Amino acid sequence: MKRTAFFISDGTGITAEALGQSLLAQFDNIEFEKNTLPYIDTIEKAHEALTTINRAAETDNTTPIIFDTIVNDEIRAEITKSNGFMIDIFGTFLGPLETELKAKSCYTVGKSHSISTNRNYERRIDAVNYALDNDDGARTRHYDQADVILVGASRSGKTPTCLYLALNYGIKAANYPITEEDVDDQKLPTPLRDYKNKLFGLTIDPERLAVIRNERRPNSRYSSMKQCNHEVEEVELMYRRERITFVNTTDYSVEEIATRIMVATGIERRAK
Amino acid sequence: MKRTAFFISDGTGITAEALGQSLLAQFDNIEFEKNTLPYIDTIEKAHEALTTINRAAETDNTTPIIFDTIVNDEIRAEITKSNGFMIDIFGTFLGPLETELKAKSCYTVGKSHSISTNRNYERRIDAVNYALDNDDGARTRHYDQADVILVGASRSGKTPTCLYLALNYGIKAANYPITEEDVDDQKLPTPLRDYKNKLFGLTIDPERLAVIRNERRPNSRYSSMKQCNHEVEEVELMYRRERITFVNTTDYSVEEIATRIMVATGIERRAK
Repeated sequence: MKRTAFFISDGTGITAEALGQSLLAQFDNIEFEKNTLPYIDTIEKAHEALTTINRAAETDNTTPIIFDTIVNDEIRAEITKSNGFMIDIFGTFLGPLETELKAKSCYTVGKSHSISTNRNYERRIDAVNYALDNDDGARTRHYDQADVILVGASRSGKTPTCLYLALNYGIKAANYPITEEDVDDQKLPTPLRDYKNKLFGLTIDPERLAVIRNERRPNSRYSSMKQCNHEVEEVELMYRRERITFVNTTDYSVEEIATRIMVATGIERRAK
Repeated sequence: MKRTAFFISDGTGITAEALGQSLLAQFDNIEFEKNTLPYIDTIEKAHEALTTINRAAETDNTTPIIFDTIVNDEIRAEITKSNGFMIDIFGTFLGPLETELKAKSCYTVGKSHSISTNRNYERRIDAVNYALDNDDGARTRHYDQADVILVGASRSGKTPTCLYLALNYGIKAANYPITEEDVDDQKLPTPLRDYKNKLFGLTIDPERLAVIRNERRPNSRYSSMKQCNHEVEEVELMYRRERITFVNTTDYSVEEIATRIMVATGIERRAK
């Protein structure tokens, strides 16, 4: 049986969605159709949302699940009239927090993902520009500014991870591809030698690497199992020989790879 | 008075952090020092976390606030022994959800941000590559594949927004800078003419643009107030003349710009 779920907020909906997704993931026998409704910040929009919810209730012939972080009581009351089952995320926790903190919450709209300070924004944008300029070994002379330099075979996940670190944490992450020539050489590539303490390795199962490379260059030597096996084996040997910490990205999302790098390296976030 | 807050999880901690940040943002008279402790998935790590929490309690001379999404009861019990005030995010909502869904939760670790399917991962990576290859008007011949093409003056936020859309939603977003020559020409730049329905404009207050440009090229004509005023005015005129929907990014974070584009365009996510 299909259930419809709504993540509703007067802001971006990122918090409602993150929590809702996590909770629904615990019920893996149920198929959920998920909808995020951000910026529900007027009675009119709330009424439209209510109509959408009730339509889903009718189509599914069962109660939709609603996770909301709406702050304004009147707007929230409109959604409460729907035929959905509501989980009031903010309301549930603000009371206990007010008691513990001995303070009244100011309870304002969309605070969490609004721009906190321009300085924070600038740090993230600077870090994105750094990641772009120092992607894929394109430029190596600014490695002194890097917080971390990701290394790994082509298509092991370096670029998206660098961008995630930049966008979310304002971390300056460069990346350098370990090529076939590098592994055959059995030495750490020259541009990396002065920055050994900044290196972090990515590896990936050869089978998965071959699938990914095949999408880019089908039926090439580059994407063959033989080549992928060889490169992965040699890259991992290099990591061990040079004592470079590394993570296998095969079963990880970009968020997980990034979080594991943060834990393993202890790098501090530069922005939030 | 400073309070320390911890976001603790056996997974990435992204959910605990998103919710915790949102809730703490409602208490803007209190200064919080925030710490995310991801991958607390053994009793040993929980014990280390407990030590960290108790140290903060001693230093602050007050109770730290803990937001957790730890699934395993034994691991969670270890944290419960600390001198912190715990907000049990999952525990609070899973009971009511189980009743409503008439199902037992499988309650597994780190489900929410683990790689859901390889197809999802690939879509996001494809979209990141698309954003990189079609950044800043570098290439315009693949606009037929774009879900959206962001336009705007240099430094108005196009690139980070494209990357955010790609990383988070698997959306293929290209971007094209509107230059001084374009605005003086009073016409839509040639490469964009066939894709008017995909265009979305960014604008920004001239004062803020000047600050951002000054960081890149201090005291240049490019970053002068006069130039910024002129470009912003002309770009907005172009949006109105060509009926291009646009958003002013001055007070928005990258998340907010991206969410507003999703709402305004109605583009569907390609990955989650």
